[in-house]
Amino acid sequence: MNYKTSSLRELMQRESIDAIIFPTSDPHNSEYTASHWQSRKYVTGFTGSAGTAVVTLHDAALWTDSRYFLQAAEQLKDGPFQLMKEGVEGTPDIVSWIKRRMSVEGGRCVAVDGMVMPYADVVALQKDMQRIGVTIRTNYDAMQMLWTNRPVKPSGEIYAIDNDMIGETVTEKLQRIRHAMHEERCEGHVLTDLMSIAWTLNLRGSDVPMTPVFIAFMYVATDSATLFCNGPLTAEAQRRMSEAGVTVKHYDDFASFLKTQKDKRIMCDGKTTCYTLYNIIKEWVVDMPSPVMSMKAVKNAKEIEGFRRCMLRDGVAMVRFLRWLKPAVEAGGQTEISVSDKLESLRREAKEYKDLSFSTISGYQEHGAIVHYTATKDSDKALKAEGLLLVDSGAQYTDGTTDITRTIALGPVSDEMRRAYTLVLKANIALATVRFPEGTNGTQLDAIARSVLWSGGLNYLHGTGHGVGWCLSVHEGPHAIRMDWRPEPLKVGMTVTDEPGVYLAGRFGIRTENMMLVTKVQETEFGVFCQLQPLTLCPIDTTPILWDMMTEEEITWLNDYHKTVREALLPLLTDEDDKQWLIEVTN
Amino acid sequence: MNYKTSSLRELMQRESIDAIIFPTSDPHNSEYTASHWQSRKYVTGFTGSAGTAVVTLHDAALWTDSRYFLQAAEQLKDGPFQLMKEGVEGTPDIVSWIKRRMSVEGGRCVAVDGMVMPYADVVALQKDMQRIGVTIRTNYDAMQMLWTNRPVKPSGEIYAIDNDMIGETVTEKLQRIRHAMHEERCEGHVLTDLMSIAWTLNLRGSDVPMTPVFIAFMYVATDSATLFCNGPLTAEAQRRMSEAGVTVKHYDDFASFLKTQKDKRIMCDGKTTCYTLYNIIKEWVVDMPSPVMSMKAVKNAKEIEGFRRCMLRDGVAMVRFLRWLKPAVEAGGQTEISVSDKLESLRREAKEYKDLSFSTISGYQEHGAIVHYTATKDSDKALKAEGLLLVDSGAQYTDGTTDITRTIALGPVSDEMRRAYTLVLKANIALATVRFPEGTNGTQLDAIARSVLWSGGLNYLHGTGHGVGWCLSVHEGPHAIRMDWRPEPLKVGMTVTDEPGVYLAGRFGIRTENMMLVTKVQETEFGVFCQLQPLTLCPIDTTPILWDMMTEEEITWLNDYHKTVREALLPLLTDEDDKQWLIEVTN
Repeated sequence: MNYKTSSLRELMQRESIDAIIFPTSDPHNSEYTASHWQSRKYVTGFTGSAGTAVVTLHDAALWTDSRYFLQAAEQLKDGPFQLMKEGVEGTPDIVSWIKRRMSVEGGRCVAVDGMVMPYADVVALQKDMQRIGVTIRTNYDAMQMLWTNRPVKPSGEIYAIDNDMIGETVTEKLQRIRHAMHEERCEGHVLTDLMSIAWTLNLRGSDVPMTPVFIAFMYVATDSATLFCNGPLTAEAQRRMSEAGVTVKHYDDFASFLKTQKDKRIMCDGKTTCYTLYNIIKEWVVDMPSPVMSMKAVKNAKEIEGFRRCMLRDGVAMVRFLRWLKPAVEAGGQTEISVSDKLESLRREAKEYKDLSFSTISGYQEHGAIVHYTATKDSDKALKAEGLLLVDSGAQYTDGTTDITRTIALGPVSDEMRRAYTLVLKANIALATVRFPEGTNGTQLDAIARSVLWSGGLNYLHGTGHGVGWCLSVHEGPHAIRMDWRPEPLKVGMTVTDEPGVYLAGRFGIRTENMMLVTKVQETEFGVFCQLQPLTLCPIDTTPILWDMMTEEEITWLNDYHKTVREALLPLLTDEDDKQWLIEVTN
Repeated sequence: MNYKTSSLRELMQRESIDAIIFPTSDPHNSEYTASHWQSRKYVTGFTGSAGTAVVTLHDAALWTDSRYFLQAAEQLKDGPFQLMKEGVEGTPDIVSWIKRRMSVEGGRCVAVDGMVMPYADVVALQKDMQRIGVTIRTNYDAMQMLWTNRPVKPSGEIYAIDNDMIGETVTEKLQRIRHAMHEERCEGHVLTDLMSIAWTLNLRGSDVPMTPVFIAFMYVATDSATLFCNGPLTAEAQRRMSEAGVTVKHYDDFASFLKTQKDKRIMCDGKTTCYTLYNIIKEWVVDMPSPVMSMKAVKNAKEIEGFRRCMLRDGVAMVRFLRWLKPAVEAGGQTEISVSDKLESLRREAKEYKDLSFSTISGYQEHGAIVHYTATKDSDKALKAEGLLLVDSGAQYTDGTTDITRTIALGPVSDEMRRAYTLVLKANIALATVRFPEGTNGTQLDAIARSVLWSGGLNYLHGTGHGVGWCLSVHEGPHAIRMDWRPEPLKVGMTVTDEPGVYLAGRFGIRTENMMLVTKVQETEFGVFCQLQPLTLCPIDTTPILWDMMTEEEITWLNDYHKTVREALLPLLTDEDDKQWLIEVTN
């Protein structure tokens, strides 16, 4: 590791670069990145999924969040990188730290690979650095020189989604995109977000872990469309592209293609498009979020059918897991990881299963209070027949994506736990039962759930819900139910999670999460009113509930939900014990 | 009127101006303006409190909102101005209309008096017009030539607030402002908002209707402060200014003074400061909302004491009014205006009464459904012993400002009215009982009240609550409880109204409004939790309530509130009938 940093500094000196920033990203602003773009991991040795490294000629530091404090400390020890704990009081932010180092070291030039940082972020950095006379260089990828045996860019096969799951053809989608372009008088539209490209073309791939997409760029013109991809298309995928008039070119040819379009009025999002590509077209660019973001958030009938099918399958796996869990814990030998492995194996039995949709959170007792906890070999906690286990999990199936959290009492629980558990359930039901005009946004709705926790002097510092993609990312915008401003209106056909929680540091964590579908329920002189209908089909543990705290309406909702779950899943269970268990816990 | 427009067009032609915009504003971005600045009224003949007129060489139009459609139509008829009904489908917005006229008429120059339009608005207009090759001229006040007998600028006496109502001295306030300037490394701060200046200096005046302020500008430097005002200061006010080191200069000298400061780093709000003044200092300006906005929103102990005193007085007037109302209506001869006059006369009996805090809304039956209804001679409706009367009123007293709405059943009401009335009350109580972490903003809380109406397929298109100034404007920011984004956090000591409603066009309107104080109720590991405590002391009509729709908690809140009202007001009533009535309606 020391060797890598010294080699890097030699390169930097040769190029008159005083600092290099290594974010965790790729040219597509992805949440998860393929190994080819894991420069930060290569340089630092830290393997966590989030973090930013900075190397100056005389110093080096790595920023990461609380999930990774222990792991990063371990992996960085003996190396040149100082661990910077994000969110901890006294930790300098990256920009301030670089500024100070540049002052101390007399640096004049900071480099970042313009292919892996969004345009808006680079511009903000430039403005900040300009004040201290430091420039930003964006055209130097040190890794090309330094990283021997760098993994190649992924090139997995690109396949077409099944014919019977197409709710809208590529031609129809392109028509809608072109209509949006026309509204802004644009001649072109650049797409670099992998989910948006996969959605538009009804294609999927396997280049990115836990998200069935493929690396690609896309350009939509008024009378043509071009996909730039790295992996081969199946014959069916090729046929579909040609049917829709989509030309297929090589991934690496995108930048040079874009240069031929730079005099056009092109729609492109500077907040998500990497600096290098955006910069090519910036003279006439119309900087705005891609209209595809809002389009794909509203699910079509086929996608909703798919969601419903995979919820049945996911519900069966969850029921089998929950029925197995308590006796298994009582029998002994189970840990956070062993039970999440069990759940994964149950999901894997379905032929439609492809992958997890995110790393399972399996947090027992005080680990449940760490919101983004991932059990590691070192932290893995043995489960006992007492207290609360929080399991947040989901899968990618061929016909949909799931995300569910249940908190399970493994045995006796304290009164404090029961009270908090009941409040979280009441909060979940509050959001599940609220009726709201179509077009209401998620910021308006957030406190409908959250205020239930507030009433008990409690709170949670994450949002109440996020959109879920259909066979795409499990976290999908642009809408969300959050305390901060999310103006995107909720529309009939959108998916959103309902997941309030309570986290008491060092003690326990509780979250109850269902995926929901925005559904029309009424129309009055004040317009269309909507409600969130549960898609998730899985019993909610009733043993920790303090029934006195529940209103009649809340109990009715819970009973109705459990009746729906029972009626949907019972015919699909084969094991008599599973059936018996489901009847018991939903009655 | 035709004569005025012709004279104006002669002036325009002489100056090569193709269009002039007349907003309803003054150099202080005021909601209510003194007659000196009522150019729009002078040019058009339309006397309403809101509207914008535009005159081109060949056309003329006036935009106003639904409150004034009838009145404007009447006042504009036979004149050259076309009435543009804001919010009505098909009405062009002002900018689009001007653009089209400029295209048709071949215009190149649009004028607006830069003293009466905020900098940010002029810049936005410039950008819009630039695209069609039209420039904006801001240094021409056509009224100086045209308006013979123009009223002079107001110059009412400026007085100091009573010693025993000072919760924070001018010196202390200036210290806080300078601290905020220091944080932004500013050497100066420009204040043009009349409420902010009056607050900072603990001064009041009488230049503006319904708001006890005086026209002035203010400049705060790190070691000096200067007030530029038009009216004379009382001896006490002079003494206080000199004590706090505040120099007093003439109102008209502000622009030339500002020119001497233009090389300084000055804090100034481009969204509220007029173009002409902002433009002087724009090179080094730090454009941000004045810190005074947030400071004055949090009331000090003396202001809160004052609010509580004037609520007792206002409550007594309201009780006497409500006791009088039904029998008076039954006796016959009462109208919307006659009862609002009666209420005003009751308030006027208090020696501390100074003015209304806004024009009373007295709307009977279908008029109640017009949110900003003001009864006029023509619209004034006779009251009968049936249906609902909505009365929204308030006063300026020497020790505080009030704002209250009650909807009263004058006799039998329909089931639909009762259901809507009950939902509005439940919504009001929902906001009055919610517990929330200090720092929560009003956008987060809005749906706490609104969702109660949603549950019945109803809604209201105004905000749920606004701040109320202390002996300042009855509408005070920067916080508000609204559906759109208001990030200003709610803090202990802020005032805010709680006023959900229902408006069914052509049928009836209901609103129940109390003024509330943000109060600390609890502290937990999740921080300080707050609740809204009613400041308003006045019974809520219980006769239209459908008690089956009310929860036990809601009934308890109502009973507790009525007990508080009774105990506070009973000792202050002198008339036995009033006393008896209060006991009856609050039991």
